[in-house]
Amino acid sequence: MGTGDVVLYLTKRVEFCASHRYHNPQWSDEENRRVFGKCNNLHGHGHNYVLEVTVAGEPSRQTGMVIDLDVLQKLMTEEVLDRFDHKHLNLDSPYFKERIPTSENLVQVIWELLAARVHGCRLHRLRLWEDPTLYVEYFGSAAG
Amino acid sequence: MGTGDVVLYLTKRVEFCASHRYHNPQWSDEENRRVFGKCNNLHGHGHNYVLEVTVAGEPSRQTGMVIDLDVLQKLMTEEVLDRFDHKHLNLDSPYFKERIPTSENLVQVIWELLAARVHGCRLHRLRLWEDPTLYVEYFGSAAG
Amino acid sequence: MGTGDVVLYLTKRVEFCASHRYHNPQWSDEENRRVFGKCNNLHGHGHNYVLEVTVAGEPSRQTGMVIDLDVLQKLMTEEVLDRFDHKHLNLDSPYFKERIPTSENLVQVIWELLAARVHGCRLHRLRLWEDPTLYVEYFGSAAG
Amino acid sequence: MGTGDVVLYLTKRVEFCASHRYHNPQWSDEENRRVFGKCNNLHGHGHNYVLEVTVAGEPSRQTGMVIDLDVLQKLMTEEVLDRFDHKHLNLDSPYFKERIPTSENLVQVIWELLAARVHGCRLHRLRLWEDPTLYVEYFGSAAG
Amino acid sequence: MGTGDVVLYLTKRVEFCASHRYHNPQWSDEENRRVFGKCNNLHGHGHNYVLEVTVAGEPSRQTGMVIDLDVLQKLMTEEVLDRFDHKHLNLDSPYFKERIPTSENLVQVIWELLAARVHGCRLHRLRLWEDPTLYVEYFGSAAG
Amino acid sequence: MGTGDVVLYLTKRVEFCASHRYHNPQWSDEENRRVFGKCNNLHGHGHNYVLEVTVAGEPSRQTGMVIDLDVLQKLMTEEVLDRFDHKHLNLDSPYFKERIPTSENLVQVIWELLAARVHGCRLHRLRLWEDPTLYVEYFGSAAG
Repeated sequence: MGTGDVVLYLTKRVEFCASHRYHNPQWSDEENRRVFGKCNNLHGHGHNYVLEVTVAGEPSRQTGMVIDLDVLQKLMTEEVLDRFDHKHLNLDSPYFKERIPTSENLVQVIWELLAARVHGCRLHRLRLWEDPTLYVEYFGSAAG
Repeated sequence: MGTGDVVLYLTKRVEFCASHRYHNPQWSDEENRRVFGKCNNLHGHGHNYVLEVTVAGEPSRQTGMVIDLDVLQKLMTEEVLDRFDHKHLNLDSPYFKERIPTSENLVQVIWELLAARVHGCRLHRLRLWEDPTLYVEYFGSAAG
Repeated sequence: MGTGDVVLYLTKRVEFCASHRYHNPQWSDEENRRVFGKCNNLHGHGHNYVLEVTVAGEPSRQTGMVIDLDVLQKLMTEEVLDRFDHKHLNLDSPYFKERIPTSENLVQVIWELLAARVHGCRLHRLRLWEDPTLYVEYFGSAAG
Repeated sequence: MGTGDVVLYLTKRVEFCASHRYHNPQWSDEENRRVFGKCNNLHGHGHNYVLEVTVAGEPSRQTGMVIDLDVLQKLMTEEVLDRFDHKHLNLDSPYFKERIPTSENLVQVIWELLAARVHGCRLHRLRLWEDPTLYVEYFGSAAG
Repeated sequence: MGTGDVVLYLTKRVEFCASHRYHNPQWSDEENRRVFGKCNNLHGHGHNYVLEVTVAGEPSRQTGMVIDLDVLQKLMTEEVLDRFDHKHLNLDSPYFKERIPTSENLVQVIWELLAARVHGCRLHRLRLWEDPTLYVEYFGSAAG
Repeated sequence: MGTGDVVLYLTKRVEFCASHRYHNPQWSDEENRRVFGKCNNLHGHGHNYVLEVTVAGEPSRQTGMVIDLDVLQKLMTEEVLDRFDHKHLNLDSPYFKERIPTSENLVQVIWELLAARVHGCRLHRLRLWEDPTLYVEYFGSAAG
């Protein structure tokens, strides 16, 4: 590590595909259809998500890197791809039993999973694309 | 229409999202998992599909166009988006009860749906992207 | 609304095409040509603009969303597409009678139009692409 | 040149921005609006066009190239960019006095301009993107 | 395999990065600089290449697929990535000792490597992007 | 210049290709291979870098611009393209004799080169893409 007077932000993108359904069990079917429209479809639908993970830190003098990319990629594979790729978010994961699997909620789940495992630099930002025209960004709850 | 000595190819892209599952009911669960891997996941997974529809013809002397874009877009909406967008290909459409919903099979289904409704020019090619690294192309059975 | 300790940023992209001309009426034709170059062309030229609208807020517990996407899309259509799509910025809108229709000025106009109509969350950032190599960002005058 | 038993296709992309208006002077204003819709807007609108020029030939044994890229780029600059970039297709060029400046017609004009100047290999295909969802392709009149 | 009356084209993209230098040893340094310009730089330069491999065939009735994607990806990894990714084309491979490592020549080398190993369908086309504005396509010598 | 109460951020993208090698001379060959993997390849490898330069300032009332784009492009050409395009970062520049030419280090070098020459507005951010899945951002040492 260096003297702390330089901060670099490094971002790695990864893609995964998943399906989901928006449905609030406290509402009637009519209310769900009215609010969620096509996203309420009983059998779900899916997306090719693109996740951008940004870490911040000072590059090492020895390696010139903020983080070892193999380490970062391993984290992203274990915490994100292994859990969500080629899966149904509502049915194949425990995270959306009581939350709607919107991108807003999914990105918070991913933050919790990744933040605990980033060492030597800090998780700065997640950007999650649901399709090429729509994305959410999250900077952790400290930013609230 | 013109004198037939000029052929222009016009392509319109549209995106839709859907989920699907690869499963051959004639096989055991083990065989399905071995052949289809993650695509055999019980609850399915999903994609943002991109469809490129190419029509061929001579531009009209009056309009300079091969096809009226509003007409083309209406066809694509009615035949493709209304059927497949925000849907589960296996469960929400009649086309994949006995066929695996691969991109190879889906593009043939879409060809049948669109070819019957293109008038004044001809359907030349469909290109269907399953994700940014994978696409199939189909030119109709005559090309076989 | 939630307890305010979580902020999510949601961005929606939309494309529109328009033409414009850079010309400062207080200058001579020579001065205009010298400063604005090809952008001073008498009959104008055009672009496919891409606008990214970012809103910030806490996701609703009921819907998991920062903003209803149908509402956001309606705002963007009424305030941006209906005014500027397939238009000449100088001649078909009242906003550039005394201002040069650069992306820097256009994004400020769009901010004023959108900020007044975003409710339940706040307009955080606009990013306006003039072409794939050039974009401007604006966070509202409070950021100045 | 080689022995003629190998054909390589090389494609170079270039971008230019221009404005245009669809209007058929033989029709009433009402008919023009009905057929061309927003594209009939009196003051025009514009696009960032992307042109892909494909030449075909055998790579030179000395250089390993189908065409000298500097030569190709010079042709594209002189014949396409110098004529159409930052211009109004109807008003700043002689080609659309009696033809509607659709992409179908523009690509034919560009073909005539480029084909006459490609030497040592042949012009094979032009692809012209009007926006990221719409493009036309032309292979010359011989393909008709 | 099916009855042969349907042909589907499936394309898979992969990216690799490599460096190279254009230099014809039969020429003087001056001639090399004149012809190859910056590409003649003594220490080479590099690119993120994107390779698109297209195979053609009839989808299997059992799997709905033209080719097993795991098999295709394995071929591409072994024949292309393992040989060229993170390598210097001139110095780390035997293929460019007497040929200039242009994209035109590289795509022919890749064709020979892949064509011999595609079974159950046929290699139809390779498209090799050198950068986002330049690509070559090759259909095998039979196309010549 | 204006009254300072409005800040616009303008970003221009440019692409260049270069090769490099990661090697720490204080380490053994084994250690270099273990840490840097394929990036330690003796003859180097290369990338198509994309650099995004963001400047911040108030648009001029006369021109509607934060910076004259011709001036910005000239800076980027002289300071970045002329130094690094079609070059080997380690061998053709003086900047990486004692630093590993990672994107983290390269972006700092570019910041020093550009910041000294931006006048009338300030350099706000550099974003450097090494490939379409990886980029670094730097806001200058003041941000540390």
